[in-house]
Amino acid sequence: MLTAGVDIGGTKVLAVAATGKGEVVAERRQPTAAGPDAVLAATAAVVADLIAAEPGIAAVGVGLPGLVDLNGVVHYAPNLPGFVGVAARERLAAACPVPVVVDNDANVAALGEVLHGAGRGCREVLVVTLGTGIGGGLVINGAVNRGGFGLAAEIGHFTVDRDGPLCACGERGHWEALASGTALGRRAREWAARGDAPGVLARAGGVVEMVTGHEAGQSALAGEPDGLAILAEHAGDVALGLGGLVNILDPELIVIGGGLVHLGETLLAPIRAAFPAHVEAASLRTVPPVEAAALGERAGAVGAAALARTLVPSP
Amino acid sequence: MLTAGVDIGGTKVLAVAATGKGEVVAERRQPTAAGPDAVLAATAAVVADLIAAEPGIAAVGVGLPGLVDLNGVVHYAPNLPGFVGVAARERLAAACPVPVVVDNDANVAALGEVLHGAGRGCREVLVVTLGTGIGGGLVINGAVNRGGFGLAAEIGHFTVDRDGPLCACGERGHWEALASGTALGRRAREWAARGDAPGVLARAGGVVEMVTGHEAGQSALAGEPDGLAILAEHAGDVALGLGGLVNILDPELIVIGGGLVHLGETLLAPIRAAFPAHVEAASLRTVPPVEAAALGERAGAVGAAALARTLVPSP
Repeated sequence: MLTAGVDIGGTKVLAVAATGKGEVVAERRQPTAAGPDAVLAATAAVVADLIAAEPGIAAVGVGLPGLVDLNGVVHYAPNLPGFVGVAARERLAAACPVPVVVDNDANVAALGEVLHGAGRGCREVLVVTLGTGIGGGLVINGAVNRGGFGLAAEIGHFTVDRDGPLCACGERGHWEALASGTALGRRAREWAARGDAPGVLARAGGVVEMVTGHEAGQSALAGEPDGLAILAEHAGDVALGLGGLVNILDPELIVIGGGLVHLGETLLAPIRAAFPAHVEAASLRTVPPVEAAALGERAGAVGAAALARTLVPSP
Repeated sequence: MLTAGVDIGGTKVLAVAATGKGEVVAERRQPTAAGPDAVLAATAAVVADLIAAEPGIAAVGVGLPGLVDLNGVVHYAPNLPGFVGVAARERLAAACPVPVVVDNDANVAALGEVLHGAGRGCREVLVVTLGTGIGGGLVINGAVNRGGFGLAAEIGHFTVDRDGPLCACGERGHWEALASGTALGRRAREWAARGDAPGVLARAGGVVEMVTGHEAGQSALAGEPDGLAILAEHAGDVALGLGGLVNILDPELIVIGGGLVHLGETLLAPIRAAFPAHVEAASLRTVPPVEAAALGERAGAVGAAALARTLVPSP
């Protein structure tokens, strides 16, 4: 039996058909459309496309970056404009020929990693998705925890610098505003504007305003000193929030996913170096390992497909 | 059947004998001794005293403010000097005639509140203890969650102001460093030093260095403008961290305990007023209620007594 999983991100949509073992048998990707109507229509279309290719698909799971309640209503999604009070599950169910479940994108990524990825066998896992924003999934006592109202694990949205930059949600100095992929782009533009990022700037045609996190990451991957320095500074802010979350949650494992994870060790090594300094009494306890999402950027889509299996009665 | 519960705080020790319904039948309180040897000896002595008064006591639970692992070893306790790598459970077990269990003080307070206090019937509760430091207890899916290594819920120790005051743990700008009872004292001294806290200062004999959180609280309780203003400012910093924790954990209820809870609505009303502003999309979701610990400052001791019942086989 196959299920489909769709991971709707701030910039791209990744859809897969997967087996019960998390093996991907078909994949589609496309840019994220603008506005809820277009996003939901494009999602239904990509599901129809997958079902045409793989008629055995029995259910669909969808992950979205935002506050998604237990009924699949999106209350708020700062990185998906227009998604305020959108009954995403209900509308997709009306447009799809198979049952649909909708959850937060990082929750489904956490499910994917715990069932099929880096977290297999673990009962307490913090999954952090670094992308347009910062999302999270909390695996607690072996299950994805959704909190009292289904809105848990908005882990990008706690203040780490009350005088810091504005977050997409409107609050000042949230971890997401300092440590997301979007924040990496802002950081790189600041370095470029003051003349400290020649390698990064060259990758953006010499135009500061064209610099994004992508150019900073590519520069770092190429071993250029400016890209590496920007990424090291950025990793320090990732580590600052990560340390606080370890103090709060004490996970046995941290899994990093999201768009930035394609940077691999170039990003993870400086995070690992910086984060124990922010863990209370790090020298006197077990500091959890930090691993890349084994499913890479597919974690959300594969996890959404796994979530969809809960809709299908066991044989 | 009775059990004993001992709540060891930074400044005082509260010990009770309690029934299975959480009814306190005997109570002892004393100042906290200095150093692990003296603290553990005093704990064993107060347990012996309670057993002499209530011979039916079948087990003892102890709550301590710090990182206590699943074996009752205290790895680190910033507000209990000397407790580094102390095998508290093992040493108390050798000194007590009944079985002993040791846990973090806020974990036992959370257990007490969920079983016998403000959180009865709830499955997702955040318990926050505001005292010498800030502790926490996470009730998730109906159980106290201790994390992967037993060290979860050190909720005072995440950065909210990276340029802020030093925390007892050595990190800069942790929530505890801004919003604990100790921080209330520092805040009141700052107000007094610049001449803005005449009512508070008078309660400390006119000596700035003698001002603590206690004088600020008493001034506020008496309705003095300076005490109320200091408490309102302080409540704003409590709310800042609380909002972040709601975004991370999405509890259905927040319970405030610890030494500051004796201030009642004088403290809780400004916290309630300030904290929704820090909850992501507060107007579009359910913001959890903030309630005082129903067991008051006894929450830890009563919860420790409840934890002790897990040591006694059911009849």
